[in-house]
Amino acid sequence: MARTVRVAITGAAGQIGYALLPRLASGAVFGPDTRVSLSLLEITPALPALEGVAMELDDCAFPLLDDIVLTDNTEEAFDGINWALMVGAKPRGKGMERGDLIRENGPIFVGQGKALGKAADDVQVLVVGNPANTNCLIAMSHAAKASVPQQRFHAMTRLDQNRAATQLAQKAGVKVASVSNMAIWGNHSATQYPDAENARIDGQPCPQVIADQAWLQGEFIDIVQQRGAAVIAARGLSSAASAANAALDHVMSVERETAGDDWFSGGIISDGSYGVEEGLIFSFPLRSDGKGNWSIVQGLELGPFARSKIDATATELLEEKAVVKDLL
Amino acid sequence: MARTVRVAITGAAGQIGYALLPRLASGAVFGPDTRVSLSLLEITPALPALEGVAMELDDCAFPLLDDIVLTDNTEEAFDGINWALMVGAKPRGKGMERGDLIRENGPIFVGQGKALGKAADDVQVLVVGNPANTNCLIAMSHAAKASVPQQRFHAMTRLDQNRAATQLAQKAGVKVASVSNMAIWGNHSATQYPDAENARIDGQPCPQVIADQAWLQGEFIDIVQQRGAAVIAARGLSSAASAANAALDHVMSVERETAGDDWFSGGIISDGSYGVEEGLIFSFPLRSDGKGNWSIVQGLELGPFARSKIDATATELLEEKAVVKDLL
Repeated sequence: MARTVRVAITGAAGQIGYALLPRLASGAVFGPDTRVSLSLLEITPALPALEGVAMELDDCAFPLLDDIVLTDNTEEAFDGINWALMVGAKPRGKGMERGDLIRENGPIFVGQGKALGKAADDVQVLVVGNPANTNCLIAMSHAAKASVPQQRFHAMTRLDQNRAATQLAQKAGVKVASVSNMAIWGNHSATQYPDAENARIDGQPCPQVIADQAWLQGEFIDIVQQRGAAVIAARGLSSAASAANAALDHVMSVERETAGDDWFSGGIISDGSYGVEEGLIFSFPLRSDGKGNWSIVQGLELGPFARSKIDATATELLEEKAVVKDLL
Repeated sequence: MARTVRVAITGAAGQIGYALLPRLASGAVFGPDTRVSLSLLEITPALPALEGVAMELDDCAFPLLDDIVLTDNTEEAFDGINWALMVGAKPRGKGMERGDLIRENGPIFVGQGKALGKAADDVQVLVVGNPANTNCLIAMSHAAKASVPQQRFHAMTRLDQNRAATQLAQKAGVKVASVSNMAIWGNHSATQYPDAENARIDGQPCPQVIADQAWLQGEFIDIVQQRGAAVIAARGLSSAASAANAALDHVMSVERETAGDDWFSGGIISDGSYGVEEGLIFSFPLRSDGKGNWSIVQGLELGPFARSKIDATATELLEEKAVVKDLL
């Protein structure tokens, strides 16, 4: 029992936090030989509810759960952490434009980025709260001034990856475990590009298994892009369990060496690969060395359709960046 | 990948179901070599919400999740299942007495008990919905007519066990993993007896570690008995994640051989052990052989205090049985 990992979760009393915490504390993410310490951050009015969440974590009697810090102070929450899961963000209010949402959330991530200076040297940061890519860009920018390497910042597109893999599996009539190499390109927004061309089904290129090119370039992309709204329409509540699951999947993908010739998707700082402007937080197909370092999968074929989609989502990210340029 | 376990969950679109399903489908309960099939039962008006839950399970891309059946038909839900997690029950309405609650829920468990005739030969049943012991008694009674052995029926007291273990650990200033042999006796209600006398802390008898006898026989028991209300007061919502966790812990305890000289707690049919009337669903300290068979731990010392508590909770269960005698 050599290791304890300290994980901060922001917005920890929310629905995604509530779905995420038991799985994290149970050892399902970091394994049976790693103890877990939790730093739970909430806004002041949510602290009583957060206390209730902590009571329930106590009542789970998780053998691997070390201690739980509850706080509304970001610097205290991030003190000595190895992972920050930035789940908390202001939701989109009625009649609010995406630009308004970006401006509402930006300042939160300025403060949280600065506070990451308190984290452990090996800290990794996953931004779940929307607009995730641009929030991540802001946090990265301020954390860099506190010497946190830019490569440690991730914006979550894993939920999109998982949704896309399931749609391909259902179309092909196979189990989702048969789908691999599912790339999500760009922004975690309606412009994202879920890449069926480079996906594989039972090791075969997806377009060889699913011959319906019109579906792959049309309905498939629409379903993935609009899946969140479809879940809300059915449940009456936004995706929480599946978003929490995706966050945990992302952490596991970073922590473990990527198997075989598979990849996973996540928003990280662009180095200019595939013509995406350097410095943007852009979702690429990634591989991990299992030691906290990722690399962008190189050399994938992108046809004209993919190229236009990737350009469009990059353009949206540049526009979002312009909206927050005073916050960077 | 030899085995697939089919699990039915009743009330699957509720908060406990929502917390339970991702952990179940992720493989955390039955292990990495067992596929999981889910049969999700809901009342008709909740079917759209249940559809949303299933969409989110799809969106988790769990490699071990086989298929998902959604239905409002109990016989369809229980067809071929290996486990039934009976989570659904009518909640206690304002001004409703416990007797009213028992009468409201009884008929549900008559129907579900009968439908268990459709289950696989090895079916195990865990009742979570309250009043759990008496609901379990009703289901067992009707399933017995369909040849399901009475020994397969469990009423959940694992949440009480986990809560009690944590309270002892916090009082002793140790981690919860140091607490073992935590027995809950009797009814999952305010009369339950969480047994500190026979509990152990780091292998030592608990009363040798926590010398405060007045606390062990007073506040400790009160805290455990009233923990549910305390969580509601803090969260504004009833325990869901911790209840789901307890259900999964119980399943794992039944499925795996009990380690060392530890035990776990669950409501099962009394064989008259410790003077508890035969045939009641009563929570005892149990051990599992890992093959689906449990035995009641024998020979524990029960002082006069414990005796009076156990008699009181047995009396309550006899009274509940009398309330539903026409349903048995």
